[in-house]
Amino acid sequence: MGVDFSHTYAVIMAGGGGTRLWPLSRKERPKQLLPLIGQETLFQSTVKRLSGLFPPERIFVVTVDEQAREMQAQAPDIPAENYIIEPAPRGTASAVGLAAMALMKRDPQASIAVLSSDHFIRNVDLFHYLLKASFEVAADGYLVVLGITPTNPSTAYGYIQQGQALDGEYKYPAYRVKNFKEKPDEQTAQQLLRSGDHSWNGGMFIWRADAILREIQRQMPDLHSTLERIGSHWGTRDYESALRDHWPGLKTETVDYGIMEKAERVAVLPAGGLGWSDVGMWSSLFEVLLPDMNGNIATNMNLHLAHETHNTMIYGGGGERMIVTIGVDDMVIVDTADILLVCKTDQSQKVRDIVEHLKKHNQERYL
Amino acid sequence: MGVDFSHTYAVIMAGGGGTRLWPLSRKERPKQLLPLIGQETLFQSTVKRLSGLFPPERIFVVTVDEQAREMQAQAPDIPAENYIIEPAPRGTASAVGLAAMALMKRDPQASIAVLSSDHFIRNVDLFHYLLKASFEVAADGYLVVLGITPTNPSTAYGYIQQGQALDGEYKYPAYRVKNFKEKPDEQTAQQLLRSGDHSWNGGMFIWRADAILREIQRQMPDLHSTLERIGSHWGTRDYESALRDHWPGLKTETVDYGIMEKAERVAVLPAGGLGWSDVGMWSSLFEVLLPDMNGNIATNMNLHLAHETHNTMIYGGGGERMIVTIGVDDMVIVDTADILLVCKTDQSQKVRDIVEHLKKHNQERYL
Repeated sequence: MGVDFSHTYAVIMAGGGGTRLWPLSRKERPKQLLPLIGQETLFQSTVKRLSGLFPPERIFVVTVDEQAREMQAQAPDIPAENYIIEPAPRGTASAVGLAAMALMKRDPQASIAVLSSDHFIRNVDLFHYLLKASFEVAADGYLVVLGITPTNPSTAYGYIQQGQALDGEYKYPAYRVKNFKEKPDEQTAQQLLRSGDHSWNGGMFIWRADAILREIQRQMPDLHSTLERIGSHWGTRDYESALRDHWPGLKTETVDYGIMEKAERVAVLPAGGLGWSDVGMWSSLFEVLLPDMNGNIATNMNLHLAHETHNTMIYGGGGERMIVTIGVDDMVIVDTADILLVCKTDQSQKVRDIVEHLKKHNQERYL
Repeated sequence: MGVDFSHTYAVIMAGGGGTRLWPLSRKERPKQLLPLIGQETLFQSTVKRLSGLFPPERIFVVTVDEQAREMQAQAPDIPAENYIIEPAPRGTASAVGLAAMALMKRDPQASIAVLSSDHFIRNVDLFHYLLKASFEVAADGYLVVLGITPTNPSTAYGYIQQGQALDGEYKYPAYRVKNFKEKPDEQTAQQLLRSGDHSWNGGMFIWRADAILREIQRQMPDLHSTLERIGSHWGTRDYESALRDHWPGLKTETVDYGIMEKAERVAVLPAGGLGWSDVGMWSSLFEVLLPDMNGNIATNMNLHLAHETHNTMIYGGGGERMIVTIGVDDMVIVDTADILLVCKTDQSQKVRDIVEHLKKHNQERYL
């Protein structure tokens, strides 16, 4: 079955305020709004990556009020009315439901690619190819998830086990999903990596709006009726107050746990070679940025002198400041105006503990 | 032979502009003028350490014009006329000669303890005891050098080999010096450490002014005649112009090579337990400052969060800046306004290479 691409939409999920790249990302400056890789912000790269596949008027953004203004400034081509505002975070299930409802009202034939605002993908051509193939599969009513071929036994992602190949004549191999697995422990992660039939759940979904709403109705009837109530005011002056009234009562739930794990027609396209990264912690930037011959990366730097330094990333504030490293191996150094972080690369997930510590001790100014 | 302590003087050598503690010490802010250890500068600690042994009017300072003003501000008790100004650096032989000449003019019975402005000594009582004992030995005409009992096979110091014990009835064991040895290579340093009869030359000398001038006359007649010429104007309005005229023509020479190595009556007092350090590189601060249970040191810090961090020194700029270390071992981190240094502790002598590199590339602003 062919796909009419004039009914395909991208929905960028951008509500998060993560601090995993602290101290660069802060409560007020979330990761997606930072020029983390070169001059563009991750959000700008995400929008740019869609060029050629979606015109700006078919790119939507789900976010919170506080971030919408900055995003509009960063991506002025996306119409202001394409921002779908969550009054408060209620989990990804609620967010994809709201987007599906809004797009159904606009285009009952809408198919949606749900994407993250703060991920990196090196191979944009392959990404486009995979989205097109996914829309083919989604056209047959499947809820499609892109599976990222694992490159290491990561404990940071959920895993997707592929089952039988789908019958359809698609332009890329697609499989029934046999199993969704929560973030595993290290030993399990190694088994999953070796199995060959597991991929990472990177949070990229492709589905028809009617298909996802049907699954919400079946599995999360409360969410569905709330979406119906809000949707009945769509396009009227009452919409915003209806949203404000009904949204806060929603249960916070993820799309994985709330919908995907028990959905009826779920397919996975296992994707290697995308050069995907969720840029989830400092160590992941080594996969994204290109180190020099010594394995070093220096970004936003005026001057970095490296002596006997290897596999080390310097994330500097630029300006006239000089950073000198001597005998430094496997480190991440992040130098901001008010915080300096020096961290062994393989411990960069512990930045989270520091952030928790600061929260607990009311050090708000450093968050 | 007893010592009349009213004729003993301290001469603090303070001309240096070392950059071995770069980037904290700079061309314009030499090590001795920095509050490196607590609130006091090394120069202030040096002066304070003499209290009880020398009244301020018998403490002299040999330095250059640019540093004298700052030193007077830091140690206001020392009379301004006790600053002996070198118009230009001409080595330590010239400097101790100038001091001996100036003190002879003031007090022909003068005995002098030559000390450094930028060293650390933990055990001040023992230091006083050793100086008193050294003055006893010096009273018998010896040029005395304090030998520092080595605690490791350092290649950073010259070594002194002790010979026969002196006959005199001194309050501390004193020996003829058998040999002065230049800074050794590592293998030699290990042999010297094992020998048991070698100590470090820490640049602390005790002698009668007439004795050192006699040796200068014998071994460095040019220096001696220049000192005579300058000295003939001592106390007159012509002194400064005589100094300016004659000083620049002097050959640059160290006191060790120019005088001590071939002097006739040289004695050493081998001193363990002083807790001496020349604070010659960042790693040496671990001996001087007191690390916490994890071996860490944080100085001048508003806030240091250490997670899985060991044997690491954070030298921060204070203020509101926070420094976070995760998984960091055996490092020195120096955070100044315009330069950040991250350096493996055992490579901290390589700071010198960085300074050389900056000189070569005309990066004056960072020196």
